[in-house]
Amino acid sequence: MDLRKVIREVENFPKEGINFKDITTLMQDGEAFKFTIDEFIKDLKDKNVDVIVGPEARGFLMGTPVAYGMGIGFVPVRKPGKLPHEVESYNYGLEYGTDTLEIHKDAIKPGQRVAIVDDLLATGGTMEAAAKLIEKLGGEVVSMQFLIELEFLNGRDKLTQYNVNSLIKY
Amino acid sequence: MDLRKVIREVENFPKEGINFKDITTLMQDGEAFKFTIDEFIKDLKDKNVDVIVGPEARGFLMGTPVAYGMGIGFVPVRKPGKLPHEVESYNYGLEYGTDTLEIHKDAIKPGQRVAIVDDLLATGGTMEAAAKLIEKLGGEVVSMQFLIELEFLNGRDKLTQYNVNSLIKY
Repeated sequence: MDLRKVIREVENFPKEGINFKDITTLMQDGEAFKFTIDEFIKDLKDKNVDVIVGPEARGFLMGTPVAYGMGIGFVPVRKPGKLPHEVESYNYGLEYGTDTLEIHKDAIKPGQRVAIVDDLLATGGTMEAAAKLIEKLGGEVVSMQFLIELEFLNGRDKLTQYNVNSLIKY
Repeated sequence: MDLRKVIREVENFPKEGINFKDITTLMQDGEAFKFTIDEFIKDLKDKNVDVIVGPEARGFLMGTPVAYGMGIGFVPVRKPGKLPHEVESYNYGLEYGTDTLEIHKDAIKPGQRVAIVDDLLATGGTMEAAAKLIEKLGGEVVSMQFLIELEFLNGRDKLTQYNVNSLIKY
């Protein structure tokens, strides 16, 4: 199945000059959505993954069905102030300024094998931050899965020490 | 399975006096998470549902695995400015002030049978707004599914015209 055909491109969103890849058209198509999640699971099934991590909010859309389909747990990585219990935080640089992500301190047990699932690999900053959080808790990041990779942004250069898989490349 | 045992209660979050029900402990437990999603699917399977809708962000966590498990599509309802294409908006009252939710105008086709899935039924305001958006687009809301219902907030009183199911009641 050519997933490009069910991804809508929206010009100038969220700002002028950006050609946004809208995954909602893929998700509302039951067949394409099932195909997508099954492709992630196929790539992960021999990696002995204990738990899936997904960054807020579009990582939730991809990561939770993967966890459900594999019969394993899901752990959210969220923006500051959203998680109610004790958290580990990580600050990372953006083009202008910084951003912070949080994970519950007891969400990952030392030695657990973790796969991170997200919709988009752009500059790789969010994924690198999520990996650092998992590693702070003693988890091992055994795979990073993306629906879409924007190759011209060279996000993989930040993630060379990890196993990276993307289903669609632009 | 008694799901109450895997839900963590956090006192005074997000503000003083609130006993927050933390579903992350349920979700990181693969067996409990699978059981939860399967319970939603069991209740929905005879309702001829065409598509699942989930409100941002915790509705994504519950709704996408349900859609995947049923082999049908998922449509997100989001906060303003997050959806890239043409949207339908709905303003609704909160205890103080108002809030707005949006859905893509072409996400639901007239006559489609829709189930909405969310983590929590509190006052029912978010769920009512999501239903209004679906109905504006010509969809029929055939079920509302919640992981948790806070009965003392009487959210069901706002939703009497709908089929409402919750897995855990407090």
